[in-house]
Amino acid sequence: METIKAAVLGASGYTGGELLRLIGDHPNVRATHLTAERHAGKNIGEVFPHLRGFNDSKLQILSADSIPDDIDVVFAALPHGTSAAIIKKLYDRDIKIIDLGADFRLSHEKYEEWYIKHPCPELLPKAVYGLPELHRERIRKSKLVANPGCYPTSAILALAPLLKNEIIAPDPIIVDSKSGVTGAGRSPSLDFHFCEVNEGIKAYKIDEHRHMPEIEEILSRFTGQNVEVSFTPHLIPMDRGILSTIYVRLNRDISTAQVIDQYKQFYNGEPFIRILPENSFPSTAHVRGSNFCDIGIKVNEKKNTAIIISAIDNLVKGASGAAIQNMNVMFGFEETLGISHAPMFP
Amino acid sequence: METIKAAVLGASGYTGGELLRLIGDHPNVRATHLTAERHAGKNIGEVFPHLRGFNDSKLQILSADSIPDDIDVVFAALPHGTSAAIIKKLYDRDIKIIDLGADFRLSHEKYEEWYIKHPCPELLPKAVYGLPELHRERIRKSKLVANPGCYPTSAILALAPLLKNEIIAPDPIIVDSKSGVTGAGRSPSLDFHFCEVNEGIKAYKIDEHRHMPEIEEILSRFTGQNVEVSFTPHLIPMDRGILSTIYVRLNRDISTAQVIDQYKQFYNGEPFIRILPENSFPSTAHVRGSNFCDIGIKVNEKKNTAIIISAIDNLVKGASGAAIQNMNVMFGFEETLGISHAPMFP
Amino acid sequence: METIKAAVLGASGYTGGELLRLIGDHPNVRATHLTAERHAGKNIGEVFPHLRGFNDSKLQILSADSIPDDIDVVFAALPHGTSAAIIKKLYDRDIKIIDLGADFRLSHEKYEEWYIKHPCPELLPKAVYGLPELHRERIRKSKLVANPGCYPTSAILALAPLLKNEIIAPDPIIVDSKSGVTGAGRSPSLDFHFCEVNEGIKAYKIDEHRHMPEIEEILSRFTGQNVEVSFTPHLIPMDRGILSTIYVRLNRDISTAQVIDQYKQFYNGEPFIRILPENSFPSTAHVRGSNFCDIGIKVNEKKNTAIIISAIDNLVKGASGAAIQNMNVMFGFEETLGISHAPMFP
Amino acid sequence: METIKAAVLGASGYTGGELLRLIGDHPNVRATHLTAERHAGKNIGEVFPHLRGFNDSKLQILSADSIPDDIDVVFAALPHGTSAAIIKKLYDRDIKIIDLGADFRLSHEKYEEWYIKHPCPELLPKAVYGLPELHRERIRKSKLVANPGCYPTSAILALAPLLKNEIIAPDPIIVDSKSGVTGAGRSPSLDFHFCEVNEGIKAYKIDEHRHMPEIEEILSRFTGQNVEVSFTPHLIPMDRGILSTIYVRLNRDISTAQVIDQYKQFYNGEPFIRILPENSFPSTAHVRGSNFCDIGIKVNEKKNTAIIISAIDNLVKGASGAAIQNMNVMFGFEETLGISHAPMFP
Repeated sequence: METIKAAVLGASGYTGGELLRLIGDHPNVRATHLTAERHAGKNIGEVFPHLRGFNDSKLQILSADSIPDDIDVVFAALPHGTSAAIIKKLYDRDIKIIDLGADFRLSHEKYEEWYIKHPCPELLPKAVYGLPELHRERIRKSKLVANPGCYPTSAILALAPLLKNEIIAPDPIIVDSKSGVTGAGRSPSLDFHFCEVNEGIKAYKIDEHRHMPEIEEILSRFTGQNVEVSFTPHLIPMDRGILSTIYVRLNRDISTAQVIDQYKQFYNGEPFIRILPENSFPSTAHVRGSNFCDIGIKVNEKKNTAIIISAIDNLVKGASGAAIQNMNVMFGFEETLGISHAPMFP
Repeated sequence: METIKAAVLGASGYTGGELLRLIGDHPNVRATHLTAERHAGKNIGEVFPHLRGFNDSKLQILSADSIPDDIDVVFAALPHGTSAAIIKKLYDRDIKIIDLGADFRLSHEKYEEWYIKHPCPELLPKAVYGLPELHRERIRKSKLVANPGCYPTSAILALAPLLKNEIIAPDPIIVDSKSGVTGAGRSPSLDFHFCEVNEGIKAYKIDEHRHMPEIEEILSRFTGQNVEVSFTPHLIPMDRGILSTIYVRLNRDISTAQVIDQYKQFYNGEPFIRILPENSFPSTAHVRGSNFCDIGIKVNEKKNTAIIISAIDNLVKGASGAAIQNMNVMFGFEETLGISHAPMFP
Repeated sequence: METIKAAVLGASGYTGGELLRLIGDHPNVRATHLTAERHAGKNIGEVFPHLRGFNDSKLQILSADSIPDDIDVVFAALPHGTSAAIIKKLYDRDIKIIDLGADFRLSHEKYEEWYIKHPCPELLPKAVYGLPELHRERIRKSKLVANPGCYPTSAILALAPLLKNEIIAPDPIIVDSKSGVTGAGRSPSLDFHFCEVNEGIKAYKIDEHRHMPEIEEILSRFTGQNVEVSFTPHLIPMDRGILSTIYVRLNRDISTAQVIDQYKQFYNGEPFIRILPENSFPSTAHVRGSNFCDIGIKVNEKKNTAIIISAIDNLVKGASGAAIQNMNVMFGFEETLGISHAPMFP
Repeated sequence: METIKAAVLGASGYTGGELLRLIGDHPNVRATHLTAERHAGKNIGEVFPHLRGFNDSKLQILSADSIPDDIDVVFAALPHGTSAAIIKKLYDRDIKIIDLGADFRLSHEKYEEWYIKHPCPELLPKAVYGLPELHRERIRKSKLVANPGCYPTSAILALAPLLKNEIIAPDPIIVDSKSGVTGAGRSPSLDFHFCEVNEGIKAYKIDEHRHMPEIEEILSRFTGQNVEVSFTPHLIPMDRGILSTIYVRLNRDISTAQVIDQYKQFYNGEPFIRILPENSFPSTAHVRGSNFCDIGIKVNEKKNTAIIISAIDNLVKGASGAAIQNMNVMFGFEETLGISHAPMFP
């Protein structure tokens, strides 16, 4: 079986570390080029002691020129802007690129409204939004995949069947999300100091998080109509996991069982979507470490409203696991290779 | 200064323990009669080692007849049904009663729809819903106070000013609440076993929790109109705290600053309500151990929607602190006595 | 490649669930017979929602007669006494047995001193203590393996090289261990209720835990001399992991670097032991979910004392991972099969 | 009743915040001058939102000259070195000083061995080590008190009675301590980033923490003999609390009950020491937020060894509560004023 070589740019963050963990389990890939600005020169095992013995690479300075010719796939786990700047230099090489940042997820206009001036807008039309459940065929043919944001993954997968089946009333959709702290990255700051986060819960970037336009734009493109959401994330004192509780109004009489059926049909054959039976609802604890998205559904028939709840591991299905899934699709590997293990509970 | 004697029925649960902690700080009250079914005969210090040296009472069997004549106030921290049954026997005595359970919070009809057959419906008209910020004068004159539920406290305090000022559109109000695990009580069960709860988040009793009709009924009574909410609670891996994120649609153009002003006027002089400045939002960590309710507000002027976020400590403002506050009002003590300490952070 | 069939007795506890997780990753084994007293009749996915889609077996009543003839290996994750009673009935069948309980770890005399009357002492001489790093050859030939206790694994692996090299003075060895809460099992009780455990630390069974004689006996057998330890476990508010901090007095002048060398030689080629470099010390967070035992060493040359610190995941190297490792040895599989994945951090 | 004015230098750290919380509950003190380098100009409520409404002081730049003349007591919660430098300038003013740092705890020689060159060694003989249980009379007469370190408090209080009664054999004493994360302060760093600490345990500064010489020196002075300890601290994923597990060898036959009696006599009348009954052992959860030190004892009569376990809240009895206690002693207030509240559990 073919073995490919991967570069991981930004290997010292949580997303980078998780990529290395998953690549370590993957029979067809080896991570042979790792970069990390602040830690260049160190072994990865000094930065991530859990990886001691798995990968003894030295961390390199980030530079397009230094990425060896034999690299087949580049995973960019870099700050926005930095990512596009380096991908611009790599795009013409014979290499596939998976960007775990935000630079290639939005339209040019939305990107510049919510982020910064885009370093290479000419590449935006080349990029595919890497949610295989919605865009598998386009990912297969692409050489530049924009790996979805963690919150958008949880929201889009939960909403796509409802929207596709046109059973939502044109009210604002409310997405109330709760995330573990790895979602905030590994850079030290008072906000994520242990004692500031532990034993408390708070909302942040209320109705103004950058993942809100991502949810709206991807769902609007997917449905061909204008989708608006009100999105508020919360920080939960735990390491991993996103739970999104989504409130919608329905435009017809329909039962919970019928909606569950629609979801099962929509996701028929999908290896990483688990639609829960009626009266069961997901917990982030039950997807931890895995590439699953669990979805539970409850319709209030009296009020014609529905609540959809999805759970993912933000570092796996919400980031690095999805990136491996995209890589599998892009290289024609079996889609579940390296990411088929069960969740770890507790 | 007068010193009164209190009985705490159900002293071995978290609410009971918290009552004893707060009473220990109160200059005018002593807890002299404690009951606890399963632990009768033990010292309270065996059941709650943190209280060693504070209260050396023996726990008694629950029985109306055993409650001594010199008791001035009874705190009932008992399961619903049990509470009403004992209060029925106590009501005619010269004693003030604060029920921390659900038996006297709802109308007869709603109670029997959501709970059980009521043991003493004739007492329901005598009971006052004990939220001093809304019903202080009635509490002052009452001898039977129904201490509010924890979730309802967080939701009602956050919604009352909006509703009173009639700026909410007649859409369903969405209350997405997140609670620490003490809210589930102290009875062992797999659901609240450490490893089942830790490092995960899930919703439960989605759109069907018994606190939903309580929120609806109290707000409906308060506003004189029919208030409907969709309420979903979540379990958070932390001990204490409730954060409620509330989504409403507004019926007019109004700014965040203006709504904040309305809240400040509504709660003017209230010792336990802190309305946060614009762009500040509450965390449960910043009210821990205290009787405060912190409220933050954000209006989306483009969409005419608002998000109100409130934080309380479910064991204090959501239960035992509110009970002490009610006691202070009922006995003419200064309202903040024994519950004026700062939150404990971290 | 040969595929074998496994029975997991006691599949609804954490050890059972972890066996199923690991078996799910193992190419040569399928778990086809699962038992769980209280949950018989349910699907495993109802008891462990994280395993939905991985194993759809129905849980059976525990009974030797019901274990199908095609089962090749039985994992017994049962209370002590129960385990020996069923193994007694199975021993003569053509089946290999790995007991994750305590029934076959100690000598007859010590077992009855610390546990109960042994149900089948005649089998004790047949059982091999399943620590492959010390007893690999005997495990290979055995059909009944006593999987080590979690604390003993962490202590024995940390002490064996020191004792073998005879550099410890004949003082009492102090083992101060800290364990996550999964070590206490999955049966609900007040002691392990979330709020009782969270945000606190305490010692328990001080100097009298049943794992103390296990550590002493195995190390005494291994060294041929009488080894005494003082062992105190502590409960830590986390799910997984054991850290053992071990204090010894040395009988000669030796440096940290020299002791580290001795450990590296002793464990040369061992796939699951990571001896850390000087000035590095283990964290349970860096072995989580994996079969590793990380060991750090510090010698105080002035005082001729040493501190050895080991970290394992109690559910993996301390229980189910070790069981899979033993199975691999017993069946002649590659020893790391199914348990070679990297730790999950964070 | 007299009201005094306090300055809190270093008010934006956890120790400073806890001082403000406790001062807020104290009838005789007001904190009127607060400093915080990085946050000068802000209100304390911006830095510690839990204190909103309790103290609206602006944070000042640290400067001896800026400390107003009407200040009666200065609490210095500053880095070592910084503290001595400012106290040097303040010492001659009519002011009492409580230093929560390390600058005045050790002898000149030990200080410079373990820390830095001392800025004002001439003041060292003036300072009293502020452990009222051992040095109450000297504290009463002092104007400069060195508030004990958190680990030393837990170790010294646990060992003093044993040493005073001369029942310990001259073996090294082993102190294995476990601390919550507030002990590391509030400065952001990767080491204390939420996800690095959560769900793991590790030792640090093994046998070389600066609190080791403090324990040795204070106990040596107290007993008049040379006391040596081996001290290893561990970081626990919780906010508050230190548990110290102490291993000693005894020089005579004595029972647990007899040793407990000795402790009770030694600490007779002490308001903040709780000696637990036989077979009871402390948990940090049962002293949280309070000024208590709980101590449990177990003798192994066969081996002539004993294990002493102590629990404190590192921010209260281990820092700010002890500082208030010292202030009470220095000013002739009732010793328990402002710090007599019960622990908060859970």
